[in-house]
Amino acid sequence: MDQLIAIIGGDARYLELIRQLQNLENTTIILVGYDKIEQGFTGLKQLEFDELEVEKLDAVILPITGTNKVGNVEVIFSDQKIRLTKQWFNQLKKTALVFTGIDNDYLVAVTSEAEASLISLLDRDDIAIYNSIPTAEGTLMMAMENTDYTIHSSRVCVVGFGRVGNTVANKFSALGAKVSVSANSIRDLARITEMGLTAIPLQSIHKHIADCDILINTIPAKVIGKQTIQELPAHSMIIDLASKPGGTDFDYAKQRGIKAILSKSLPGSVAPKTAGKILADVIKQYLFVTRDE
Amino acid sequence: MDQLIAIIGGDARYLELIRQLQNLENTTIILVGYDKIEQGFTGLKQLEFDELEVEKLDAVILPITGTNKVGNVEVIFSDQKIRLTKQWFNQLKKTALVFTGIDNDYLVAVTSEAEASLISLLDRDDIAIYNSIPTAEGTLMMAMENTDYTIHSSRVCVVGFGRVGNTVANKFSALGAKVSVSANSIRDLARITEMGLTAIPLQSIHKHIADCDILINTIPAKVIGKQTIQELPAHSMIIDLASKPGGTDFDYAKQRGIKAILSKSLPGSVAPKTAGKILADVIKQYLFVTRDE
Repeated sequence: MDQLIAIIGGDARYLELIRQLQNLENTTIILVGYDKIEQGFTGLKQLEFDELEVEKLDAVILPITGTNKVGNVEVIFSDQKIRLTKQWFNQLKKTALVFTGIDNDYLVAVTSEAEASLISLLDRDDIAIYNSIPTAEGTLMMAMENTDYTIHSSRVCVVGFGRVGNTVANKFSALGAKVSVSANSIRDLARITEMGLTAIPLQSIHKHIADCDILINTIPAKVIGKQTIQELPAHSMIIDLASKPGGTDFDYAKQRGIKAILSKSLPGSVAPKTAGKILADVIKQYLFVTRDE
Repeated sequence: MDQLIAIIGGDARYLELIRQLQNLENTTIILVGYDKIEQGFTGLKQLEFDELEVEKLDAVILPITGTNKVGNVEVIFSDQKIRLTKQWFNQLKKTALVFTGIDNDYLVAVTSEAEASLISLLDRDDIAIYNSIPTAEGTLMMAMENTDYTIHSSRVCVVGFGRVGNTVANKFSALGAKVSVSANSIRDLARITEMGLTAIPLQSIHKHIADCDILINTIPAKVIGKQTIQELPAHSMIIDLASKPGGTDFDYAKQRGIKAILSKSLPGSVAPKTAGKILADVIKQYLFVTRDE
């Protein structure tokens, strides 16, 4: 029998995700919260939320944001109000998979009680690395739009060498920027050097940015404070990719007249189609490969 | 004695060009047509056009656009009307250098009669190659802004392998795009292959673009006609970098619902500071190196 998958809510990324999943074999997709989409999805079933037969679902795909603290789901392509209660989750099969972008205490509690599996997609290393590509391209775009010089030959200081910092450093370097990367561990500093970039220990970053044109922070902690900002040249700009509230002292940057931008989630805005495909590729692994094992 | 250089008119690029030239030794810069610049240029002489002592000038720097057919100069930072007549050029020293971005019959005729040297900066190979960097970055920016997928993994078809085509192919490839390049000569096709890109003979381009996401034309001739456009996938887009009117059948692209953009001069709009420095670097060579020989 077909496996039954309900996609409940979602943003522009989900249009591609649906396209990617809709031709899977032995799979029936039900869309909830897509009634305002003009183009429609030929051959897919669209239901009202209360028409769902929850006990028959093999998988539920929630939006990137999951639910809020009381189970409300963000629905962009519908006026429906959707709330996933504890009782709703308790109707799920024990083998059901619940996909979300990010989880929260509520989702962890209700899926745990329902004995369903909760998969937080954005926590996965592969998705984080794939998503770092549109993030880095979006950063390039922001840098190009906000400067009057080329990326080529510009001095770019990347703070942090995690999944995003690594990709961002690579892309700017590939376009001919002079890239330095700040990190803490000797392992990261060695890798940065191996890549032909300039490695800077995080604690002494303020001593190495006097000629920095573009500073890009990727660390979600207060790492770009007064001590660093006051050493930046007046023409420089800061792009902060760390999740809200970023790692920059934005007030002090403003006071010094240095443009500082906290970027919103770039994959969804810069390349929703690619971002949707990234999610779909991993979901497919769970639906087939993982289950076959 | 100092050499005397008049900069007459110019756009945003010229602000950086002036900054680059203003600290040259043994050089006096006179600005004409910059009276509306708020910041001003400390230490530089600003004159009205009719106050210029033309016979004393060692070099004249005209705007990128040079003059129109009757000698009028485009002035952006002033309300002055400036016209360079034949009589005006005839007052120049015979050793005077006249720099322009692009030349025209009028400029060639009047400088020739005045026996002054006319230097068309944009015709020079070095400037064309340096300018291809901001052009390629601007193309990346346009591609990012107009698609919902990443450059990475996208299929990009570059038409032409001149100074711009070569750089554009390099930059897209550096970001992970799958790049093919169309060219005519066996030399170019071999070089394209050597670079790890897919070489496509220009005459058979229509047979190789069925999966092209972004087609970028760099050839200033009608090369992207119906035969090619009708083979492009419906979601693809065309960016035409060739100078006006471009090499694309824009009407037919529109008819097919394929987005096609004729780009304006990208160096001046994307990176005026870099573009100004590129011009200044070459002008400096003429003012010093060339004269010393």
